[in-house]
Amino acid sequence: MTDLKQKIIAAVADDVDAIEKALADNLKPHFDLVSDVAGHILFAGGKRLRPLLMVLCARLCGFSGDQVVRFSTIFEYLHAATLLHDDLVDGADLRRGRQVAHQKWDNPTAVLTGDFLLARGLSIAADTGLNEVIRTIARITENMSQGEIRQLERKGDVTLSEDAYVEVIRCKTAVLFQGACRTGALVAGAGTDIVQALTDFGYHLGLAFQMADDLLDYTQDSRSLGKRAGADLREGKMTLPLIHAFSHAPDGQREHMVSILKNPDFTPAEFAEFVDMLHRYGGIAYTRSLAAEHIQTATAALDAFDHGPVREILTDIADYALVRNA
Amino acid sequence: MTDLKQKIIAAVADDVDAIEKALADNLKPHFDLVSDVAGHILFAGGKRLRPLLMVLCARLCGFSGDQVVRFSTIFEYLHAATLLHDDLVDGADLRRGRQVAHQKWDNPTAVLTGDFLLARGLSIAADTGLNEVIRTIARITENMSQGEIRQLERKGDVTLSEDAYVEVIRCKTAVLFQGACRTGALVAGAGTDIVQALTDFGYHLGLAFQMADDLLDYTQDSRSLGKRAGADLREGKMTLPLIHAFSHAPDGQREHMVSILKNPDFTPAEFAEFVDMLHRYGGIAYTRSLAAEHIQTATAALDAFDHGPVREILTDIADYALVRNA
Repeated sequence: MTDLKQKIIAAVADDVDAIEKALADNLKPHFDLVSDVAGHILFAGGKRLRPLLMVLCARLCGFSGDQVVRFSTIFEYLHAATLLHDDLVDGADLRRGRQVAHQKWDNPTAVLTGDFLLARGLSIAADTGLNEVIRTIARITENMSQGEIRQLERKGDVTLSEDAYVEVIRCKTAVLFQGACRTGALVAGAGTDIVQALTDFGYHLGLAFQMADDLLDYTQDSRSLGKRAGADLREGKMTLPLIHAFSHAPDGQREHMVSILKNPDFTPAEFAEFVDMLHRYGGIAYTRSLAAEHIQTATAALDAFDHGPVREILTDIADYALVRNA
Repeated sequence: MTDLKQKIIAAVADDVDAIEKALADNLKPHFDLVSDVAGHILFAGGKRLRPLLMVLCARLCGFSGDQVVRFSTIFEYLHAATLLHDDLVDGADLRRGRQVAHQKWDNPTAVLTGDFLLARGLSIAADTGLNEVIRTIARITENMSQGEIRQLERKGDVTLSEDAYVEVIRCKTAVLFQGACRTGALVAGAGTDIVQALTDFGYHLGLAFQMADDLLDYTQDSRSLGKRAGADLREGKMTLPLIHAFSHAPDGQREHMVSILKNPDFTPAEFAEFVDMLHRYGGIAYTRSLAAEHIQTATAALDAFDHGPVREILTDIADYALVRNA
């Protein structure tokens, strides 16, 4: 384990414990099947990054009321809801090293439990009594479903532009990070500038996080990923490493890459060759540098705050998003 | 067409037109696939009963502001979202006489478009700026997903009690009717007693509506249903006509009914025999009389209002729920 990771884990251990407890408490009193299926996805070693960001952002604004941790569960429930639906949409078979819910149970159960978790998140949002928070959460759910639909529509579309890719990951990932950080500021009753600073922080962190995630599919083995390596490629998911490499590969090479992408039964050797080409044509390096730029913009947004331990841990989390291996 | 139906259609024609327009307007500006799939389920001849109830209840409270029709779309979007997910859950193939979305497109598209419509409804709810409305909508979505999960869990469970059935239809149907009527009162700024009266009206109407719907599966042919006759039986859905008939059939007959229920490949002759037994052991008559009782309770709740054209049309709609044939 890296030093940075150890430092973060130690700093947020108490918060994560409180979040874990709130995640379980706020599922009650619900009957067995929902608890089982929701629990399967919720308690499988997730990092609790989204609720943690909300709690830390609220604290950065000087607020740590009793309800903050409860409200933070919204972002993990929304996240888990989309994972349940996305795994089904993607036809995935592993998630965090475990069999996905739509296979362990069935499609209907995965769909309905996802609906339930989404509804549970919105219900807790309503409990905040803050219109601006509720509006933020409603828009997040709207954006996330649109992002997923857009990604589904463009699956295997080798003409996808970098702009279109950024729009997809904005909707499917960045709005949730952004919403978590923004909500932290809102429940703290922060002023407009501060709300905007944390909104920006979350947005850029979310983009970088997804770019880093898209890189992992080409740089990590199945074991550390908790899912099959090459899953994105097998699904025809047009992520930034591919988009950049496609547009920088010489003609013959580009067609060769496309032919591997178009064949979901590619061999491990072909996958290795594909990854080599992603490196050779700059896809990996370009994605890494763009993610790093977003992290820089994110951490710069924290200049709205004085230096101190909470700002430091948020900066550490942002830095770690770039170097994490799972 | 019955006189009552004609009278209702004439009385609400302008409202339905306004609702149709708002349903289309509030989907924009969304890109093609969502519009196509959402449009397939939204614009297939639905009765707009839920938004209509909200508009009429607001008017009964003396309110008809510009935004009422827009807010009423929430209840049609939520309804359409659950239809998309439920058709997939039930493995249905026809809905309102058209091929279901998860077959015309695919499961992922149906799931994500359902998510989008749910989110769109919540987003419009957030626009009301009324906490009590938002809380109502959030609870509706939570209840509906729980009702569907519960129904799925109990599929083919011949021991399901009448109470458990009522709890399922409360969650999956009545809360949406109840929420539409309650929201009408809330946006009108009605007092507590009036809000409660319309909440009760919607609740009992919703229960009766679902009971009547469950009857149609055994009393109508495929053409007027817009879906295959016997669909509920084929899915093992334990509705009130069955529950009552099972508990009143003599031993040998009960086992015979169960054997038909347990065989999804029952013949038309077996289906006809099953329907005969539902009649013989009182399932049809009992369900009809319980639905009629709920309609009576619903219309009694309207005694909180003076007599007048709006109260009359709401009463007509309630009465029609019992005699409709589709």
